[in-house]
Amino acid sequence: MNEELTAYVSAFVDELVRSGVRDIVISPGSRSTPIAILAAEHPQMNVRVIVDERSAGYFALGLAKAKRGAVALLCTSGTAAANYMPAVAEAYLARVPLVVLTADRPHELRDVGAPQTIQQIGLFGGHAKWFAEMPIPESSAQMLRHARMTASRAAAVAVSHPRGPVHLNFPLREPLLPDLLSPGLWAGGREEGTAYTAVTEGAKLPAPAALRSLAAKLSQTANGIIVCGPQDEPGFAEAVTGLAEVLQYPVLADPLSQLRSGSHSLEYVIDSYDAFLRDESAITLLQPEVIIRFGAMPVSKALLQYIHRYPQARMIVVEEGDGWRDPTLLAAELMNADPSELCRALTVCVNEAVPKRNAFHAGWARRWRRINAETRRLLREESRRYDELFEGRLFVELEDLLPERSTLFVGNSMPIRDLDTFFGNNPRYVRVMGNRGANGIDGIVSSALGASIGSEHTVLVIGDLSFYHDMNGLLAAKLHGLNMTVILVNNDGGGIFSFLSQAQLPEERFEQLFGTPIGLDYEIAVRLYDGAFTRVHHWEDFREALGRSFTEGGLQVIELPTDRDSNVAMHRGIWDKLFSRLSALL
Amino acid sequence: MNEELTAYVSAFVDELVRSGVRDIVISPGSRSTPIAILAAEHPQMNVRVIVDERSAGYFALGLAKAKRGAVALLCTSGTAAANYMPAVAEAYLARVPLVVLTADRPHELRDVGAPQTIQQIGLFGGHAKWFAEMPIPESSAQMLRHARMTASRAAAVAVSHPRGPVHLNFPLREPLLPDLLSPGLWAGGREEGTAYTAVTEGAKLPAPAALRSLAAKLSQTANGIIVCGPQDEPGFAEAVTGLAEVLQYPVLADPLSQLRSGSHSLEYVIDSYDAFLRDESAITLLQPEVIIRFGAMPVSKALLQYIHRYPQARMIVVEEGDGWRDPTLLAAELMNADPSELCRALTVCVNEAVPKRNAFHAGWARRWRRINAETRRLLREESRRYDELFEGRLFVELEDLLPERSTLFVGNSMPIRDLDTFFGNNPRYVRVMGNRGANGIDGIVSSALGASIGSEHTVLVIGDLSFYHDMNGLLAAKLHGLNMTVILVNNDGGGIFSFLSQAQLPEERFEQLFGTPIGLDYEIAVRLYDGAFTRVHHWEDFREALGRSFTEGGLQVIELPTDRDSNVAMHRGIWDKLFSRLSALL
Repeated sequence: MNEELTAYVSAFVDELVRSGVRDIVISPGSRSTPIAILAAEHPQMNVRVIVDERSAGYFALGLAKAKRGAVALLCTSGTAAANYMPAVAEAYLARVPLVVLTADRPHELRDVGAPQTIQQIGLFGGHAKWFAEMPIPESSAQMLRHARMTASRAAAVAVSHPRGPVHLNFPLREPLLPDLLSPGLWAGGREEGTAYTAVTEGAKLPAPAALRSLAAKLSQTANGIIVCGPQDEPGFAEAVTGLAEVLQYPVLADPLSQLRSGSHSLEYVIDSYDAFLRDESAITLLQPEVIIRFGAMPVSKALLQYIHRYPQARMIVVEEGDGWRDPTLLAAELMNADPSELCRALTVCVNEAVPKRNAFHAGWARRWRRINAETRRLLREESRRYDELFEGRLFVELEDLLPERSTLFVGNSMPIRDLDTFFGNNPRYVRVMGNRGANGIDGIVSSALGASIGSEHTVLVIGDLSFYHDMNGLLAAKLHGLNMTVILVNNDGGGIFSFLSQAQLPEERFEQLFGTPIGLDYEIAVRLYDGAFTRVHHWEDFREALGRSFTEGGLQVIELPTDRDSNVAMHRGIWDKLFSRLSALL
Repeated sequence: MNEELTAYVSAFVDELVRSGVRDIVISPGSRSTPIAILAAEHPQMNVRVIVDERSAGYFALGLAKAKRGAVALLCTSGTAAANYMPAVAEAYLARVPLVVLTADRPHELRDVGAPQTIQQIGLFGGHAKWFAEMPIPESSAQMLRHARMTASRAAAVAVSHPRGPVHLNFPLREPLLPDLLSPGLWAGGREEGTAYTAVTEGAKLPAPAALRSLAAKLSQTANGIIVCGPQDEPGFAEAVTGLAEVLQYPVLADPLSQLRSGSHSLEYVIDSYDAFLRDESAITLLQPEVIIRFGAMPVSKALLQYIHRYPQARMIVVEEGDGWRDPTLLAAELMNADPSELCRALTVCVNEAVPKRNAFHAGWARRWRRINAETRRLLREESRRYDELFEGRLFVELEDLLPERSTLFVGNSMPIRDLDTFFGNNPRYVRVMGNRGANGIDGIVSSALGASIGSEHTVLVIGDLSFYHDMNGLLAAKLHGLNMTVILVNNDGGGIFSFLSQAQLPEERFEQLFGTPIGLDYEIAVRLYDGAFTRVHHWEDFREALGRSFTEGGLQVIELPTDRDSNVAMHRGIWDKLFSRLSALL
């Protein structure tokens, strides 16, 4: 047995747990044996084994999102680690804390043609927030401190802002079996059970004078908007809507901003801008002087184009970390601050600056709210006129049907866009998630399954190509007994391209390179993983199937067969109706 | 329309074709549109669309192996590119030429939170032989030269020794549609139709004096062996067996060395060392003085341990490129030379040095050949005594059943090891392939499907976990009408761990982390992809199913349900029989 290995690795694993990492997703392999066994033996570590490392990476990502905390990943050496690359890139860009542990061959077996040995040093490049090459395990007091300090540090770096993945590479030498009878197993942590190094991160906030000055400026600016992109901080919705109220600024809320549903005030939350900002007269009417942006970039292309129309508007981008998220290149101020703290502090300052609020520029907000309300009504009504399976209507249905405290995960490409347009404000709390770091169609099934842990009802809306891409992810539902309802929008191919310029190509070329129908019968795929499958053709059947999926549990897949061409036509029909309505209104 | 884009990208694509890249594997996406369309429009480029980029990467790898030439890959920006990581690492280590083209956002949309934008500069790190960031397309004469020169260069770097993947990253700005009516389309290449820059690579060879000196030394050394690892150069088998004959050195031939079958002399080819080098008396008897190694490290652990037993033996490692493949750390000489040229030159020198060959150390080779023949006989006989589905026997059956000029692709973990032990010399030419760069269980299905192109009969032997890992790969068979027979060795889990120290763990822990049964009914998976599935329980049925699979074509999956525990017992039974036989013999 290997005492040095046992002592070092058990200290590391124990310290991960003490530092708040209670979940590890393991893909089987030989080189990672000591970490895998010791993680499984630790009484407070939840171990889930997922064979395909690509799916495992995304599963951990979803779980970390759901928990708002760091999740560990472990794989063996070689291409196993390379399979984490997509999820690590997504985690970096979406700011999701992962502690990625890769087992490696020891130094004497690297770059000499030994089996299962790739270049794992810095494998994830700039997509890992922090990388450390671990030592060959040793059990001196100083090296056990190193194990604990590094585990503490890895967990802390992963969750500090901006959150993200960290990567530790472990060179391990045979024999790989730890000694589970070792008396020192788990020993050596801080007596209080706390982390070896307790890391606290202060909240950034501008100096009081700067805050007062900004508040004064904003108070004097009638035509301001607040734009909230994807974010998931508890308390932010209350803080930002509080600020919106004192400033009387509309809040343009991305569907992943967690602002469209919940118990905070929805009064200033604009949920239909993606639709009405396609309309020229609305854009003209709604000229902003100041734009305050929180979170990642929203999904709406109409919003992006609207912002580009007014480059002279002063854009303030609030960044909780040290990122630089402004693809418009228009930001005049980049404010490194905690978003919720900033909103609360500004609210106080504005209240002090303008004691008699509510009157001073109410007309601006009223205009936004009226157009928004009218648009929302039209989107709901017109969608419901389509009896056929219109992809947009799905989200109108879900707005009404999703239970309180459920999780809605949406795939990229069309589902996130239809969500944006058609899923409106909602007093029930629905946590809405997607992978919007790199917006890939890969890994969505696994991410949603990871996110399903701890949520009573999880609904994933996903297109067929994206579903196919991560079909392997379904194995986790079967092996770990997870509950998830998948709404599979099956238009047999890449639906988004029918909205883009590629649609001008001759049909054969378009279908070959962009439409890419793959013609799979997903009922068979779902049966492979012991899931229940329902193909629906009417909205009544859909509603019934959705309700049944919640009561039956397990993996439930509801397929909506749709048609790419008529889907485009129905979307365009709604835009035409909206433009007429707005031209009458404005 | 975008004239600069059209001119630049069409020059690049045209030049890829002129430089010998006639196949491109494309995964759909928007940013890559101009390259995809122009590749599809080029009359001499074969386009295959594969949705899952991970599978696409491995498919291209298999195709490049089969063609012994560079294959291009194309994907859109974001995690799409990250999904190539495993295949690129494998290609680098296995020395397979790929030209990886990734579309990217232009500079103004990078690192500013724009969608589908990851850090693609140098994404594959040290696993790309060469990386270049391409310019924003321009159509000046100099920039069109740049497009052609870079395409020529990329193709040439990929196929120069050591072969490997190159990566070009293309920043592309909207509008993305090329102008297919542009008069300059495809214009501007060299008139003769050749590459813009024709690259020739000279063959490395030691100076004549050094060759004569080495030949003289070898001629005076009776107890030499030649070890041939995985390699696939036409002509090498003849060259190395020619050298073996004049030196009277046995050639220990890895199953992927392409030496165990074909029309070259099999007289000195030792195919059973993996079995008899487990025997202590054989090891003692066969003490080498010199070891000449060609190709990558062989799979056999017994061989590795044998080499380690004789560190004083002079090991000469022949490297065609500038690699360093010696995980034993025992090499006394590393000779950068073309393997075939070196063998031929040495053969001439040895003949000159020892005109009366054939007698001077025949005893050594005879000893190896006798032990080898006896071992092979026993392996065949004893395997056939197991009427049940013994995983080793599969390769004894295949040795007899595979048709001339077929391709045998084997998965990692157990299939490659059983192949090594049980698949013996064979006068029919069977090309044997595997992914032995990083030895991953990922991407095997796609690699084999890529390799099936151009081979009349392709048989893939793969374990269930590896099959599951790349099940998405099966889509290529359905969409591109490929023919492949998959022999799925289904022991419901990771069979190799039952041979390793992990098997000492309590059963529950072992099964959770290492055995990892996933319990899928692969008949369903195969049906999803319109394949034919046969589950066999007797060898007679297997032989019939294999024959039928060749005549029926398409995707044919034959499942052999085996048992992990009894498989270990049967292997051990054979070793025991072998040790008794050898102790009687030696």
